[in-house]
Amino acid sequence: MLKHQLLHPQITSALARGGHSSKVLISDGNFPHWTRRRPNAEVVYLNLRPGLPGVTDVLETLITAIPIEAAHVMDYARTGPYALQADPDIWADFRRLLQSTDCRGELTKVERFAFYDLAGAPDVIVTIATGEQRIYANLLLTIGVVR
Amino acid sequence: MLKHQLLHPQITSALARGGHSSKVLISDGNFPHWTRRRPNAEVVYLNLRPGLPGVTDVLETLITAIPIEAAHVMDYARTGPYALQADPDIWADFRRLLQSTDCRGELTKVERFAFYDLAGAPDVIVTIATGEQRIYANLLLTIGVVR
Amino acid sequence: MLKHQLLHPQITSALARGGHSSKVLISDGNFPHWTRRRPNAEVVYLNLRPGLPGVTDVLETLITAIPIEAAHVMDYARTGPYALQADPDIWADFRRLLQSTDCRGELTKVERFAFYDLAGAPDVIVTIATGEQRIYANLLLTIGVVR
Amino acid sequence: MLKHQLLHPQITSALARGGHSSKVLISDGNFPHWTRRRPNAEVVYLNLRPGLPGVTDVLETLITAIPIEAAHVMDYARTGPYALQADPDIWADFRRLLQSTDCRGELTKVERFAFYDLAGAPDVIVTIATGEQRIYANLLLTIGVVR
Amino acid sequence: MLKHQLLHPQITSALARGGHSSKVLISDGNFPHWTRRRPNAEVVYLNLRPGLPGVTDVLETLITAIPIEAAHVMDYARTGPYALQADPDIWADFRRLLQSTDCRGELTKVERFAFYDLAGAPDVIVTIATGEQRIYANLLLTIGVVR
Amino acid sequence: MLKHQLLHPQITSALARGGHSSKVLISDGNFPHWTRRRPNAEVVYLNLRPGLPGVTDVLETLITAIPIEAAHVMDYARTGPYALQADPDIWADFRRLLQSTDCRGELTKVERFAFYDLAGAPDVIVTIATGEQRIYANLLLTIGVVR
Amino acid sequence: MLKHQLLHPQITSALARGGHSSKVLISDGNFPHWTRRRPNAEVVYLNLRPGLPGVTDVLETLITAIPIEAAHVMDYARTGPYALQADPDIWADFRRLLQSTDCRGELTKVERFAFYDLAGAPDVIVTIATGEQRIYANLLLTIGVVR
Amino acid sequence: MLKHQLLHPQITSALARGGHSSKVLISDGNFPHWTRRRPNAEVVYLNLRPGLPGVTDVLETLITAIPIEAAHVMDYARTGPYALQADPDIWADFRRLLQSTDCRGELTKVERFAFYDLAGAPDVIVTIATGEQRIYANLLLTIGVVR
Amino acid sequence: MLKHQLLHPQITSALARGGHSSKVLISDGNFPHWTRRRPNAEVVYLNLRPGLPGVTDVLETLITAIPIEAAHVMDYARTGPYALQADPDIWADFRRLLQSTDCRGELTKVERFAFYDLAGAPDVIVTIATGEQRIYANLLLTIGVVR
Amino acid sequence: MLKHQLLHPQITSALARGGHSSKVLISDGNFPHWTRRRPNAEVVYLNLRPGLPGVTDVLETLITAIPIEAAHVMDYARTGPYALQADPDIWADFRRLLQSTDCRGELTKVERFAFYDLAGAPDVIVTIATGEQRIYANLLLTIGVVR
Repeated sequence: MLKHQLLHPQITSALARGGHSSKVLISDGNFPHWTRRRPNAEVVYLNLRPGLPGVTDVLETLITAIPIEAAHVMDYARTGPYALQADPDIWADFRRLLQSTDCRGELTKVERFAFYDLAGAPDVIVTIATGEQRIYANLLLTIGVVR
Repeated sequence: MLKHQLLHPQITSALARGGHSSKVLISDGNFPHWTRRRPNAEVVYLNLRPGLPGVTDVLETLITAIPIEAAHVMDYARTGPYALQADPDIWADFRRLLQSTDCRGELTKVERFAFYDLAGAPDVIVTIATGEQRIYANLLLTIGVVR
Repeated sequence: MLKHQLLHPQITSALARGGHSSKVLISDGNFPHWTRRRPNAEVVYLNLRPGLPGVTDVLETLITAIPIEAAHVMDYARTGPYALQADPDIWADFRRLLQSTDCRGELTKVERFAFYDLAGAPDVIVTIATGEQRIYANLLLTIGVVR
Repeated sequence: MLKHQLLHPQITSALARGGHSSKVLISDGNFPHWTRRRPNAEVVYLNLRPGLPGVTDVLETLITAIPIEAAHVMDYARTGPYALQADPDIWADFRRLLQSTDCRGELTKVERFAFYDLAGAPDVIVTIATGEQRIYANLLLTIGVVR
Repeated sequence: MLKHQLLHPQITSALARGGHSSKVLISDGNFPHWTRRRPNAEVVYLNLRPGLPGVTDVLETLITAIPIEAAHVMDYARTGPYALQADPDIWADFRRLLQSTDCRGELTKVERFAFYDLAGAPDVIVTIATGEQRIYANLLLTIGVVR
Repeated sequence: MLKHQLLHPQITSALARGGHSSKVLISDGNFPHWTRRRPNAEVVYLNLRPGLPGVTDVLETLITAIPIEAAHVMDYARTGPYALQADPDIWADFRRLLQSTDCRGELTKVERFAFYDLAGAPDVIVTIATGEQRIYANLLLTIGVVR
Repeated sequence: MLKHQLLHPQITSALARGGHSSKVLISDGNFPHWTRRRPNAEVVYLNLRPGLPGVTDVLETLITAIPIEAAHVMDYARTGPYALQADPDIWADFRRLLQSTDCRGELTKVERFAFYDLAGAPDVIVTIATGEQRIYANLLLTIGVVR
Repeated sequence: MLKHQLLHPQITSALARGGHSSKVLISDGNFPHWTRRRPNAEVVYLNLRPGLPGVTDVLETLITAIPIEAAHVMDYARTGPYALQADPDIWADFRRLLQSTDCRGELTKVERFAFYDLAGAPDVIVTIATGEQRIYANLLLTIGVVR
Repeated sequence: MLKHQLLHPQITSALARGGHSSKVLISDGNFPHWTRRRPNAEVVYLNLRPGLPGVTDVLETLITAIPIEAAHVMDYARTGPYALQADPDIWADFRRLLQSTDCRGELTKVERFAFYDLAGAPDVIVTIATGEQRIYANLLLTIGVVR
Repeated sequence: MLKHQLLHPQITSALARGGHSSKVLISDGNFPHWTRRRPNAEVVYLNLRPGLPGVTDVLETLITAIPIEAAHVMDYARTGPYALQADPDIWADFRRLLQSTDCRGELTKVERFAFYDLAGAPDVIVTIATGEQRIYANLLLTIGVVR
């Protein structure tokens, strides 16, 4: 077992192959993990069961391993079956956890299908699938620079 | 053996990798399963013999495993060697079985070659080939959201 | 996302390929997951970080998916740097959770290197690596019969 | 679609690669399909759901495609949780269907673990996994000679 | 050995994966089998030696296995080193053998480089390379519907 | 197309990788081509249909490409369902065709299961599967030395 | 060992998979063999050491195996560090050796980067890398027809 | 162990497959090695720890193995978090070490995202990832001609 | 780039897959890295050039990532061409660096061919090849327990 | 192109992965290169045509790249079709070329089938197949130590 906080062999390996401008997607349980990935991209499934692990579990761990210079979330619908009237609660957790990183806790909202495009672009180095049950809980991180 | 209704290792695995907006094709016996798939896409062959299993056998089982928010069928020719004068009988079965899902039993008809294009698009996570003998019996399902 | 409790594509697929007499290893964080597996055997890494997930998280989820007719644990050393004087606390959790299964909560203790041999035998269908921090927390389950 | 009774691409291909003395296993739903196969052997999963398809569905279809000169079944326990007091009902179906083949409907009983060994031997060309729910319903066929 | 006329494991498997609109190329000995295939497409080499097997050997066998609704041939040059003044003799064999199929023996002529394009399109499910020595002997079949 | 008699890409490549003491099996239609090969060994299927090609078609072609210093055949049963009372007719063809090679037309008979063992030994460089319908028509050639 | 002049397993196999219009590149030692190939194309390295083998060694051997209907060379720069004032000496060897083929010894000159494009096009069936030390010694052959 | 200065099996093999116009990227620790490579391109990781090895360690070694006719560096930002006011110190080392090569120590500066494009182009034969800690330390070499 | 000391993607991934009793080999430049590994075992080449990196460079880095409970070295010959009269100097470095680990700096000497056997056993999770020029500098570490 | 004498990417890579005690086989044209290799071992084919390259061509080149501490040859038959009465001429070349290496030109003779066993042992890192026409010209080299 590693002496680091991040223990997972494939995630740690993927992050080690990335660098400045590479992106990491932490996807919630309803995200189309496989069909919206870049062809042949790596997807690591941690989604044991509903709610375990959550997206914030993964975020807390990644912060110990990589510098983060930006963060994107999928913006929520204002109408239709999945509409919300205010920011999802989990975004507050994202902002708090990211406060100490180079992105200063700032989240950039991206419309659903544009987010799908970002999530399937060549600079995404790994998708980490969680069992997160809350909707609009996907988080796309951009790796910064270690100095 | 799993304690679930859906027992098949590759189908259950494929569905687990999909999510909201991913699609599943249940193809009838005459569908060009392989040449009209997306390159490198997964095709699961269940087609033991003519009629076994049928498309509705598969549909009944998938309903226990995934939420379904839309369904497309290949529209039938009105002229030529494969023409029909009315909806195929099997569509009534589709509508009945899908009544309890998020798509409320509604079927969207798509012209033959446009259907081929949908069936080969990147958001199709798996094609399930049956031995269904009836023509115009292909069914393309869109996965919804579990809440 | 599946409507089942067990969401993980590789675990659900592996279990679906097993049957009566196949075994499943849930390994703790210090287990030599890879070197003590059977050559070419499947190992699924869920070990995000120390303690997440724990072995009981996995056990609770597997119970919803497969019948269990027996359970083995790695017996603890009575001397040396990793000695214990009594059963590890986690075994009480194992016994309680397994009470409702066909093994009636009974655990069979196996000496460390004999356990390694069991964990690398051909009837183990999948090893699930956790971040469990407690020692002597490995659990080897034997699949029973669905009737 | 083929004009034959046997439609399945992998099964028909596997049978075409076999010959006199090659064996085919049709396994019931509780058989450890993967762990008791020969390493790297081919396993075709047809097991959509409990009971579909059954072992006899597969047998009926194979009879149209290959000559059969012998058939083995897993003998049933007389004591313990899975004991039977008489031949399983499905064996009568096997005998009837095999009447017209070179094995004349004769079934050879083999003890459980010896059957496992036969099922994992190098002359088994393919294992076909069904959703058969009845126990002791595994059937191992030996291919004969076409003249 | 199979009890069918078509014995070849890869050809039978490829045809079983195709369906209505999939195409099969039977190529003569001088066809650029590999460079004019679709990337990653399957090519089955039967070309043992000059003349063995011929294209009509393959055609006779395929007719027993699949419905054929159309047939294309590579049209011959009228000038240059490979010019012909009349239809190649082998086309008469094609027309006769195809008489009983859904294409009624009709051959559609396609110019050399347009034929290359057809032969490398995504709906070609398999190329079968023969040792046919006669020139302009390539035959592209379109699979029809089994009813 | 090659200017040689032997046109087949995989057979010519396999023979080119062999040398003095390597063996080549030409198998008849009922031989268990796949299950009696050496694990991971190469098997080339030429078996289009019953009788095409025959074992002698292949032998005639190989003689143009490699030196042959020995030849083995599977000896026939004297009793039972596949018994013969005299050498199969095809052996006379083998002897005649091999007359001009280094083995001087001599055939060594080997009992059925010992022949299976020879056919699955590491020095067999390729198995060539034919559609030969005659029984006891398998031929195992030993490559000699080119000088 | 084969009884042919061309002994190499991969070259002979590649040529056997080609046909009329397929191309073969014999590259000199300084050619960017890998980066200017077609993606996933086959490259056979014969380049043991400077000068061994030379491009003409390969050409002499290929002439025994395939018909050649055209030949292209990379035209030389008239200015700059790699300029020549006259045709390279090796072209005279090419013309002499190709005299007996269907291209009648005619060489078509192609500008450096256009040659790179030809060398990476889909109709190139194999690149054969030599140790040739002379510059502008690359040779691209087009396969003709065997009659 | 080789008697050369360059010992690494994958780097030496990659360079041996390249030639005139092929490129080699030596990337610093923060470069997105994997996401900005050409799809399926080879990336060799030497990055053991921060600072080991450095980019100049690799450069010194490559100079013994290949001719270098050009060199590109990623130009530095003049504003923003990673701005520099003068050429990075490491460029002086690059110029000095490259003095003896065909590029005469000349470095061509390329804007960050244009450099990413160059680094992911098809003529890059290998990316060598270092642990270099200094920023703007990436170096892209163009292979020249050995005479 | 990771924020850890150990940056290498494959080494960090391999160590993450290991655990208590798994072993890691750091091999010197003359070690037969590939032929004495376990078949299919992972070998990571860091050996850029003679002396870079050295075995102690790797050791210093691994100590930050894994617990070490034992260390083995290849004992030196007392006679013959590679004889030494005293412990190699590098062993003093090993002892000093390992002082802070669970093995307390103790080295176990193993005879050359027995060391080869240890280095090729199934519990070795990765071999790390260095450019170390000193002889008898191989080091085999046993992973301990993180608590 | 590399600036070394040894240019071949696979040979140089294989040698770089070997070390003290690894072996290299240079095989003559009649050697069973593939069937007598270790399973999954690497075989590099240089055998363009009869006599090109010869075994001594390869030996001369390898001497520039690796230290050689021993050399084995296949001893010749004294009777039978391939008998010789004195050492083959090529052995004199071997002795002369090896004079400057650590083996001092000494050749160890090994009986034919024992030589086959050596040639297929796990310490052989690569087999290099030549077109050498002389018989008993195989040469097995043992790599020594670079100091």
